[in-house]
Amino acid sequence: MATHSNLPLSVVKIGGNVVDKPEALTSFLHDFHQLKGRKLLVHGGGVLASKMAERLGITTKMVNGRRVTDAETLQLVTMVYAGWINKSIVAQLQQIGCNAIGLSGVDGNAIPSARRNPEPIDFGFVGDPITRKMDGELITTLLEKEIVPVFCAITHDGNGSLLNTNADTVASSLAISLSKQYRTTLYYCFEKEGVLRDVNDSESLIPLINRETFAQLREQGVIADGMIPKLDNSFSAIQEGVSEVMILHARNLLQKRGTMLIG
Amino acid sequence: MATHSNLPLSVVKIGGNVVDKPEALTSFLHDFHQLKGRKLLVHGGGVLASKMAERLGITTKMVNGRRVTDAETLQLVTMVYAGWINKSIVAQLQQIGCNAIGLSGVDGNAIPSARRNPEPIDFGFVGDPITRKMDGELITTLLEKEIVPVFCAITHDGNGSLLNTNADTVASSLAISLSKQYRTTLYYCFEKEGVLRDVNDSESLIPLINRETFAQLREQGVIADGMIPKLDNSFSAIQEGVSEVMILHARNLLQKRGTMLIG
Repeated sequence: MATHSNLPLSVVKIGGNVVDKPEALTSFLHDFHQLKGRKLLVHGGGVLASKMAERLGITTKMVNGRRVTDAETLQLVTMVYAGWINKSIVAQLQQIGCNAIGLSGVDGNAIPSARRNPEPIDFGFVGDPITRKMDGELITTLLEKEIVPVFCAITHDGNGSLLNTNADTVASSLAISLSKQYRTTLYYCFEKEGVLRDVNDSESLIPLINRETFAQLREQGVIADGMIPKLDNSFSAIQEGVSEVMILHARNLLQKRGTMLIG
Repeated sequence: MATHSNLPLSVVKIGGNVVDKPEALTSFLHDFHQLKGRKLLVHGGGVLASKMAERLGITTKMVNGRRVTDAETLQLVTMVYAGWINKSIVAQLQQIGCNAIGLSGVDGNAIPSARRNPEPIDFGFVGDPITRKMDGELITTLLEKEIVPVFCAITHDGNGSLLNTNADTVASSLAISLSKQYRTTLYYCFEKEGVLRDVNDSESLIPLINRETFAQLREQGVIADGMIPKLDNSFSAIQEGVSEVMILHARNLLQKRGTMLIG
């Protein structure tokens, strides 16, 4: 396949907290549309799936504090993420002149994935992308036609099963696989300013972290909890070819203001 | 755009009655995969949307015997058609080696549509494809990459609203718009052998109908009820460039056995 390794590509992940707020989402989508160059969007789920589950009387099964995706839950999250949320976002982007196309990982086999090992605990229809199997061909074709892919975090195992997948991981696996063809920046947009020294102080933003300072901050306990897997994931992506990762507030996408992670 | 006017294209529509039966659907998808040459699939909805509506306590509003798609119903049908049914079909096709991609009319603006006039009766978020605005560019790009588009019958108005659309009309508008580039055959697959002289006698298949014999059969009352709009729709498609239309049982797709409509 032709490479476009000098061409920049933005892989932007937007969290469920923003997807849930109509005004914040609309404002974000306008900014996303303004973003220059080749780009793609990955969106999280938001609370609609939980609300629907409640209305349908589907109870969330938990094992060791982690959610299990049984057949009924898989159907529900596929309806909500790949159906309503994905198509609503695409309709909004089309309205403002952005030629978006809504996809899941099963479409064009864009994200071949593997179901998690059911031993010792079976989490059901949950899986992880197999980055080395992602050829990026469909996505590259779309990007070169100036079509903007919008991915939900539903993938498949190639044996007929859809799989519920972590949206951060979908974004990083897309960024990694496309970094063979493009100079790729991965943006994690969420509801905080970036990585903060003090989670209660939005002024305490750490503007730049490299692998060394990450190790130090982690040792000092400054980076903890949910931020550790996000940064682990980010540094893996950088190791596998992504040029840089930005962690930032959804409203700061265009200014690129937040925490920049480099190798 | 380049034309491929000597290349055949099959536009296949599968009805909700087949979508609802897992074994019939699987068998149909195997046949569809065997179909030679460029092809795309359009699927109907089936009963899942009604079942979900019941479980969610969404009541179907009817005006003059026709269903109204309010905001809640639009969300529901988008979840079911564009989410679960579309992605399940694509996962099955991928499993058997068919590189399918699931789309709705909003994706890549494949099917620009117009909301139905709310006067005298407002049927809500319901619309019809604007065939002259369908450029077929995205679909042609996919077909020439040997990717098989699978469409649900959700479209959009370009102003941010998704629209519930008749699946037969989605299929005929796709066939018409693509007949500029391809020699197009439109297949309506359903649960009957084709157009029957006697609806209770599956042996009474009428193998060939042209515009003249259609007028006669209609006058004689042989073709009545739901079959009239289907045939009207089909002859319009032929008038607008589609080479032929087949109306046939889903199990007879490969044998092409059913009723053939020609100009």
